[in-house]
Amino acid sequence: MATAEYESIPEVASDAVKSGRDVAVMKFGGTSVGDTEKIKEVARRLVRAREEGRRVVGVLSAMGDTTDELERLAHEISAQPHPREYDMLVSVGERISNALCAMAVHDLGHEAISLTGSQAGIVTDTVHGKAKIAEIRATRINEALDAGKIVLVAGFQGVSADSHDVTTLGRGGSDTTAVALAAALGADVCEIYTDVEGVFTADPRIVDGSLKLKTVSYEEMLEMAATGARVMMARSVEIARRYGVRLHVRASSSDSEGTWVAEEGDLVLEKAIVSGVTHDVSEAKATIVAVPDTPGVAARVFRVLADAGVNIDMIVQNVSADGATDISFTLPKSDLATAKPILDRLAADIGARASEVDDEIAKVSLVGAGMKSHPGVAADMFEALAEAGINIEIISTSSIRVSCVVRAADVERAVQAVHDKFRLYAEERARA
Amino acid sequence: MATAEYESIPEVASDAVKSGRDVAVMKFGGTSVGDTEKIKEVARRLVRAREEGRRVVGVLSAMGDTTDELERLAHEISAQPHPREYDMLVSVGERISNALCAMAVHDLGHEAISLTGSQAGIVTDTVHGKAKIAEIRATRINEALDAGKIVLVAGFQGVSADSHDVTTLGRGGSDTTAVALAAALGADVCEIYTDVEGVFTADPRIVDGSLKLKTVSYEEMLEMAATGARVMMARSVEIARRYGVRLHVRASSSDSEGTWVAEEGDLVLEKAIVSGVTHDVSEAKATIVAVPDTPGVAARVFRVLADAGVNIDMIVQNVSADGATDISFTLPKSDLATAKPILDRLAADIGARASEVDDEIAKVSLVGAGMKSHPGVAADMFEALAEAGINIEIISTSSIRVSCVVRAADVERAVQAVHDKFRLYAEERARA
Repeated sequence: MATAEYESIPEVASDAVKSGRDVAVMKFGGTSVGDTEKIKEVARRLVRAREEGRRVVGVLSAMGDTTDELERLAHEISAQPHPREYDMLVSVGERISNALCAMAVHDLGHEAISLTGSQAGIVTDTVHGKAKIAEIRATRINEALDAGKIVLVAGFQGVSADSHDVTTLGRGGSDTTAVALAAALGADVCEIYTDVEGVFTADPRIVDGSLKLKTVSYEEMLEMAATGARVMMARSVEIARRYGVRLHVRASSSDSEGTWVAEEGDLVLEKAIVSGVTHDVSEAKATIVAVPDTPGVAARVFRVLADAGVNIDMIVQNVSADGATDISFTLPKSDLATAKPILDRLAADIGARASEVDDEIAKVSLVGAGMKSHPGVAADMFEALAEAGINIEIISTSSIRVSCVVRAADVERAVQAVHDKFRLYAEERARA
Repeated sequence: MATAEYESIPEVASDAVKSGRDVAVMKFGGTSVGDTEKIKEVARRLVRAREEGRRVVGVLSAMGDTTDELERLAHEISAQPHPREYDMLVSVGERISNALCAMAVHDLGHEAISLTGSQAGIVTDTVHGKAKIAEIRATRINEALDAGKIVLVAGFQGVSADSHDVTTLGRGGSDTTAVALAAALGADVCEIYTDVEGVFTADPRIVDGSLKLKTVSYEEMLEMAATGARVMMARSVEIARRYGVRLHVRASSSDSEGTWVAEEGDLVLEKAIVSGVTHDVSEAKATIVAVPDTPGVAARVFRVLADAGVNIDMIVQNVSADGATDISFTLPKSDLATAKPILDRLAADIGARASEVDDEIAKVSLVGAGMKSHPGVAADMFEALAEAGINIEIISTSSIRVSCVVRAADVERAVQAVHDKFRLYAEERARA
């Protein structure tokens, strides 16, 4: 399930909207700024938008593996780096790329200014490593835009309201910065430049015949993000939905149209049932075996795990005839080390037989707004997997999504089989 | 001549002094923080000072070649990187090392906080790349010290008073930060940790028998810095002198005493004539040949060069019998490209025969406060060079220094010869 985080971008948004001028927020991911040549290319794109008369805000991620390198240094120093200092450290990557891009814009004969999260007025709470944006004080950005400058904002970071410390926004943080800025500045579109052409019906690297979608609703994009589509994090899509910021996910290497993400009502989606097949191999499965079937047991299990900060995804529980049951759920592999001893203790405490973990699983999901009115979709999906000889271990559904846990070794075949089954719908959708 | 820059660190200093508590400002240069192991070593040293009950402020330079790497990126982007953005870029190196050190301190069981120049209240003018400190607003540092924390301040950088932009302080900037902080916080000593044991009577890498000095006066240290001793920049020494901050230059790799730099009156220097022999191969010589000897010609030459930002060091002019004269001076090799066309134009304008430049020179200097009362020192130096068969091209003196320009190829022999001549005095001094 999508664990969307809600961020408030209050009054400022309406203030900015009043200015009524055409603001372009353009975000460039790590591979789009991988070296100085690519940064110059980004600068040319920003300048082109400026020369079309737009007020241009660029948000660049850190170059290539800069952030990985900084993380490596931190872990050489400490097994558990101090969170405040960790944010101080890992936030420099964006400062580097944005300053370099500002230099490149200057060389193209335009004025530019790069701003840190703090200078850009990205005010957050104090939760280091996954801070939420509390407010955007856009005065300095607006002044620079009024002066005709191209503004570069270091993504992924902000400053805490109370302590004036540098904070970071967590994974996908530069998208969050860009979408929040688009909301605060009243931009009608936030362009997300990436290394793929847009949002696809399945990962083109593993599925033959996957297609680029022209449009996708916020709701579908959220489900796709939550089930493994890596093009955007659910959190940024959620902010876009709340503030009505249309997203345009597109390739930094070309000028062709990518995928628009917007309100369902604004898009021509009626005929399309399926928007995509996603997959996720980052999760593991845990099972507590032969749990006494008494009220409150499930609540107790998941409260203890939640208190330990373990993110639970799918949960299934089958009540058995003899009064004992198995509780299974999926969780990030990275949380296994934390969760395993807790589960062992829990199993003993509640009188279960044992706890088991399995990290050889994968999740395959089918997402589509049209599913709501087409009840046969789930059955079609199960059939596709059965025909491919793939066993389903867990099933979970929402109104616009069906997810199945399968063996990790089967994941590529599973995605291909499901995609083949729905290919006709997907082609229809891609043409919409 | 020493081109000391004056920075004012006003009221705050006296405020801080009132607190009357023992503040240790400890600065670590690039090689002392070359990798994460060395940063952990720095953390241990800071913790040791804290455990002695001192209020500890660390100032770390950027790790090894981080700043060079950032400069390389900037020059890949632009032949002339925009100064504001350049500062934004190159200031991140210190942020990295100081955040890493704060993590390491935490792991040793002490509280630490790393602060950017801006967070530390290092307020500067707006001259990007060589900003001067205008004020230190030490509130945040003092609060952290009051809370028992070890404070890490990113050296080399500040924030401009008017525009709130990141500024950098130029070469040796971390020393400047450390000394200015020591002044503002009322520290009675600023420890400069480096990769050598202290200040030597000559560069130990090229001179046999060079000795570590126990003490050296600000005045001598300034002359040594200005004539090629690389252990500290003149600017930081000048600030230390103005605010009476004693410096202790010492090795980060050992606990042995290094060299104390303080007021002449506070040191036992009476017997010592010579503090050291320095050399500098970074300069070139320029000559305007056969200049008509009319009033105002020299003023015109050096006004034009000053306006072009060329730093002139030694100047000699010999009036000749026939009413024409040669004007020679030294200037940084890096300014040659700017200076040459100016000199050619000047020579034509003023009716001189030609202008010549020569980048195969070196400057050898002898520095010592005791020289004031020992008029024979200069003659001894010329004699030493003559005995070694080394020709002197230009001579320049101050009350505590004699400098000679020689051929670059002769520099090592020249330094050795002069050092040998004064070795007896040097040994006396080292014992002081």
